Amino acid sequence: MKTDSLSMLCDFYELTMGNGYLQSGMDKQITYFDVFFRRIPDDGGFAIAAGLEQVVDYIQSLHFNDEDISFLRGKGLFSEEFLSYLRAFRFTGDIYAVPEGTPVFPGEPILTVRAPAIEAQIIETFILLTLNHQSLIATKANRIVRAAQGRPVAEFGSRRAQGADGAVLGARASYIAGCSGTACTLTDERFGVPASGTMAHSWVQMFEDEYTAFHTYCEIYPEHATLLVDTYNTLKSGIPNAIRAFNDVLRPRGITNCAIRIDSGDITYLSKKARQMLDAAGWTDCKIVASNSLDENIIRDILMQGACIDSFGVGERLITSKSEPVFGGVYKLAAIEDVQGHIIPKIKISENTTKITNPHFKKVMRIYSKDSGQALADLLCVHDEEIDVDRPLEIFDPDYIWKRKTFTDYTVRELLVPVFRAGKLVYQLPDIETIRSYCLDQIDHLWDEVKRFENPHRYYVDLSQKLWDIKQSLLKEQSK
Amino acid sequence: MKTDSLSMLCDFYELTMGNGYLQSGMDKQITYFDVFFRRIPDDGGFAIAAGLEQVVDYIQSLHFNDEDISFLRGKGLFSEEFLSYLRAFRFTGDIYAVPEGTPVFPGEPILTVRAPAIEAQIIETFILLTLNHQSLIATKANRIVRAAQGRPVAEFGSRRAQGADGAVLGARASYIAGCSGTACTLTDERFGVPASGTMAHSWVQMFEDEYTAFHTYCEIYPEHATLLVDTYNTLKSGIPNAIRAFNDVLRPRGITNCAIRIDSGDITYLSKKARQMLDAAGWTDCKIVASNSLDENIIRDILMQGACIDSFGVGERLITSKSEPVFGGVYKLAAIEDVQGHIIPKIKISENTTKITNPHFKKVMRIYSKDSGQALADLLCVHDEEIDVDRPLEIFDPDYIWKRKTFTDYTVRELLVPVFRAGKLVYQLPDIETIRSYCLDQIDHLWDEVKRFENPHRYYVDLSQKLWDIKQSLLKEQSK
Repeated sequence: MKTDSLSMLCDFYELTMGNGYLQSGMDKQITYFDVFFRRIPDDGGFAIAAGLEQVVDYIQSLHFNDEDISFLRGKGLFSEEFLSYLRAFRFTGDIYAVPEGTPVFPGEPILTVRAPAIEAQIIETFILLTLNHQSLIATKANRIVRAAQGRPVAEFGSRRAQGADGAVLGARASYIAGCSGTACTLTDERFGVPASGTMAHSWVQMFEDEYTAFHTYCEIYPEHATLLVDTYNTLKSGIPNAIRAFNDVLRPRGITNCAIRIDSGDITYLSKKARQMLDAAGWTDCKIVASNSLDENIIRDILMQGACIDSFGVGERLITSKSEPVFGGVYKLAAIEDVQGHIIPKIKISENTTKITNPHFKKVMRIYSKDSGQALADLLCVHDEEIDVDRPLEIFDPDYIWKRKTFTDYTVRELLVPVFRAGKLVYQLPDIETIRSYCLDQIDHLWDEVKRFENPHRYYVDLSQKLWDIKQSLLKEQSK
Repeated sequence: MKTDSLSMLCDFYELTMGNGYLQSGMDKQITYFDVFFRRIPDDGGFAIAAGLEQVVDYIQSLHFNDEDISFLRGKGLFSEEFLSYLRAFRFTGDIYAVPEGTPVFPGEPILTVRAPAIEAQIIETFILLTLNHQSLIATKANRIVRAAQGRPVAEFGSRRAQGADGAVLGARASYIAGCSGTACTLTDERFGVPASGTMAHSWVQMFEDEYTAFHTYCEIYPEHATLLVDTYNTLKSGIPNAIRAFNDVLRPRGITNCAIRIDSGDITYLSKKARQMLDAAGWTDCKIVASNSLDENIIRDILMQGACIDSFGVGERLITSKSEPVFGGVYKLAAIEDVQGHIIPKIKISENTTKITNPHFKKVMRIYSKDSGQALADLLCVHDEEIDVDRPLEIFDPDYIWKRKTFTDYTVRELLVPVFRAGKLVYQLPDIETIRSYCLDQIDHLWDEVKRFENPHRYYVDLSQKLWDIKQSLLKEQSK
């Protein structure tokens, strides 16, 4: 959690390779590594990049202390020269990244590192871990938020998260992607994500009867009375007792804002009955909150059936992205520099053609319609390419090159922004509300077809002619 | 990660309830809460309890500092009395738990808290989170280890873990459950889980050619040369270059221990070919390591097809328990004490009968065959019950009570051991090697039928007659 102790959270091979580069005189070799992913979880139409703030914290506090060095010395594998190198280690390279909350697509760099080989390797594990985790949860959270069609979705999953960071940073990522808040108190304290919560079943069980439990709660929190109505029997006792407590405690004070929560049973049926009972008792402003193993599919389904639900609490299926709990971001060498500083593009071949990498130090240009503001396609370019928006832009599918499209009225935005230069932070980290607004706004600029749950339209990520040519020549060369 | 900052990692409702108990004069009410789970992930025959050490760290460092208090004050919900209470908060209760590494079954307490209501609520979220996470990964890891049939399985998944704790503590849990080690350096430094690793594809790409990359690595690490052979073409270049490097660097030094790693392609086919090529070149001691999206099903399958693999590296599907990424441990009120200190059992009813809780302050007795040493069944008893092993013991299915069985030659072991008494640690935390040996030994005491992957035998968790009677009478009373 405390990033100042996470320098050792690296795969051991980063260190054996680091020592090897030093022993081989390659430690000053400048390398370019891209983080990108190949598949969108849940076969969705887009993913959301998240976790950059934690990458920044990590890079800024990166160092190996004396205990780390003596631990590593004890492994009997590393040269003293390398251990001294590590003791003095600071990150001195450049990092470019897409801002947190950006919708991203397979095959495009979401972060690029330019750094001496050892540095670039040592930071690999943590960068991947952090971006993979938060991008996974942000992507999932936005699916659930979209399914709720404007109703607030609160993140409730800490107890089922995969570790403390899973809970705290997962709640952060959920908020960026549109959740209304969290149950996790620490995420509020640390990141300003609004935390809320009222009662568990144990509260109800602790009192002599359900009515007393509700009455007591309303007395203490008259302005925040969300009563959990399913401890015994939702329709026979829970809702009647809630109404009685509202009548006895809230009505005399003129309070009409209140809520009930249903956490088990047939949510659709129970919520319709609850609505009728509440309305009949004059509690038309009373909100109905639903929880219990929800996800985007269940939420869509129960809303389609007319469930009377005002907001959702979503736990384990969000905080672990249960249906697909892995975001497959990878970290691949894209180029090195020769001694004169010329960039030499590198490619990784694979028998599986979808695993072949895009070589070179690149830019990602997002093309928007000038008219509608909608995002039309992303174009991967060589770092020094410029697009003249006053001229038509022809793009083509990198696999099926006869598929071509020309844009005329368009704007472009470069997605990768400088975050570190020569080890110095040059990026102003936005606050969480800014990230969240940016994220939701950017999603608004995607076509509905891309946001579809089933068989979404594939958003194009194409290569510029120059980059395509370089890739082809490297492929030819490598497969000789 | 640092448990001294995790006191605020609690669901917000623990605090609203806590304040409510204080306001209602119920803060000294003694409560009993059980942690238990209802389903074994992957429909397995048993789960493995893990994470107790982190619970102990958490409980010992639990406190709310001035920043926490002022943050909470800012929420405008809590009484000053409660905020003072929190500022002075320490855990003063008792905790009983099964030792880490114990095979556990649905419905039985794996941890029981006896504490004043507020304390018991505040620790709920972190206890669940920690036990759920590590038990999930331990359970999954052991499935994978069993599938590998004695071949070492190393945990490789940090980069795909759900956060830093997911990586570090997931690797710890994997080791407890039988993994041979991890790629995560920090898990070695912190917990003594042996970390290892050699090279990534980037190492190979950094050199002018594959042979030079391999030759250089062998020169630097002649005793630890595991060469990654699939960067370009496993059979055409990777293995031939590896053999050439072994011949040139290791053979003159008389070293025969070495390895290759295959990380893509048809692992079964490639490993057989690799074995032939290595053997033909005289490298019969060279080990073959396989990685790339493995899990217990793929490992079983490729071994069944005769893959020549000596050890496995398993990443994302282990560290996230991808096939089932949630361990559904819950925390339920089982009893309270009246002012005289009498225990009053509590039950939580549900329309879903499998969600009905087992009331009362309980013991878990594991019954072993005196003959074979095999575990026969677990029996939940009321806390003050004793079993006289010199007399026959009749157990019965709590749902189908005509199903009965009598044991004669048996021993019993009480699974829940005291960990905290009156807030003081009374348990000697075992070191990780002891936990791991205990875990593997306990699994040896399970019948093969329970360890089966498909349709395992259901291990019995029954209730003593006394506990069953109490439960029935509470059920009758509640459903009036």
